[in-house]
Amino acid sequence: MTKSLLIAWQTANKLALVIGGGSVAYSRVRKLLDAEARVRVVSPTLEKELSDLETEIEYVARKFVDSDLDDEISMVLVAIDDHQESSRIYKLCKERGVPVNVADVPEECDFYFGANYDDGPLQVLVSTNGESPGMASYLGKYIASHLPPHVRETIEMFGEMRRRLRSRFPGPEHSKFRMRLMKKLTQEYRESDPSTVDIDGVLDKYTTESLNEQHPTRP
Amino acid sequence: MTKSLLIAWQTANKLALVIGGGSVAYSRVRKLLDAEARVRVVSPTLEKELSDLETEIEYVARKFVDSDLDDEISMVLVAIDDHQESSRIYKLCKERGVPVNVADVPEECDFYFGANYDDGPLQVLVSTNGESPGMASYLGKYIASHLPPHVRETIEMFGEMRRRLRSRFPGPEHSKFRMRLMKKLTQEYRESDPSTVDIDGVLDKYTTESLNEQHPTRP
Repeated sequence: MTKSLLIAWQTANKLALVIGGGSVAYSRVRKLLDAEARVRVVSPTLEKELSDLETEIEYVARKFVDSDLDDEISMVLVAIDDHQESSRIYKLCKERGVPVNVADVPEECDFYFGANYDDGPLQVLVSTNGESPGMASYLGKYIASHLPPHVRETIEMFGEMRRRLRSRFPGPEHSKFRMRLMKKLTQEYRESDPSTVDIDGVLDKYTTESLNEQHPTRP
Repeated sequence: MTKSLLIAWQTANKLALVIGGGSVAYSRVRKLLDAEARVRVVSPTLEKELSDLETEIEYVARKFVDSDLDDEISMVLVAIDDHQESSRIYKLCKERGVPVNVADVPEECDFYFGANYDDGPLQVLVSTNGESPGMASYLGKYIASHLPPHVRETIEMFGEMRRRLRSRFPGPEHSKFRMRLMKKLTQEYRESDPSTVDIDGVLDKYTTESLNEQHPTRP
């Protein structure tokens, strides 16, 4: 077992190529659409689940041809039963430097998927590095049901707080002040019920305090 | 806020280029080494933390030059204070199709990092898509302290179970049987104390049962 680098790939508006039309292809498409990618599916046929998504994807109703890689493709996901053809597509992708994932063939993957939990801005990935996909899936659900209360709203509150702080103290010269203050406010309010927090009131109080600490002789 | 595709990037033995020698560069290097990447750091100087890792990295003691990208680089992490130079390196990477992350400049990142929890084969990533890095970090620790008991050992047990099952029923013709059985065994044993589970005993029992179900008329 080798370990991985877990990252949040920015796929918004990037073109992802999915080869295959079955249930594995569907699960790839679902993740890609959630990540705001543009999805092109190449497959002679689509199973029901996928054809229900046809308005959200670009569907090319035929087998993969090499020139499918001529476009600016950010990643290729292979989900067909033909192992030889999968392997051939994998090699083509490597030649062109396009990141590729061949379902069920770890040695032909630049990256793996895992179990996901998503709630607004919060995204969690659980990987067992291939040791136990079943446990990954179980832990994804386990974590989802053991998160602190109103976690999504709390994250959104801090996002909003940071935006308002930035509009009060814009510019890179205040960057360290903003970071220090947000760190303090996160520690202070991360377990509060966000519906009870008056964002502007908090900022009024703490920015004054912080500025006084920085300039203790200020009137 | 745009959403991301969370993935487990296979960086083992791949070359990652880190530009910078401060604390942000250090945190990047730490993650990369944990993910078994080969790490090259380019920076005129190294802060203490990083220079303590000098035996584990390849250190190039000078500023970045364009030809640093001529090698087969799998990703570039920029962590220097010079915004103009960062932006220039970002553009060079884009021209060459190399994934790049410029610290603190979301619009110059193909991917983000988040808060990580790692324990053997288990890896968890928490991202708030930039809304609240403080909450991501808090949730990483929160999740770590709310996982089910002996989760690492349980994952390792299922990994071992799958390997033994594969050696009993090798070959792609048994792939669906193995997957179906591992799914059943995961549901059955995921909450057991792994130190009490006799892997071979479990496999003896369930493979016989499953084969009988498949061929109910078998003697």
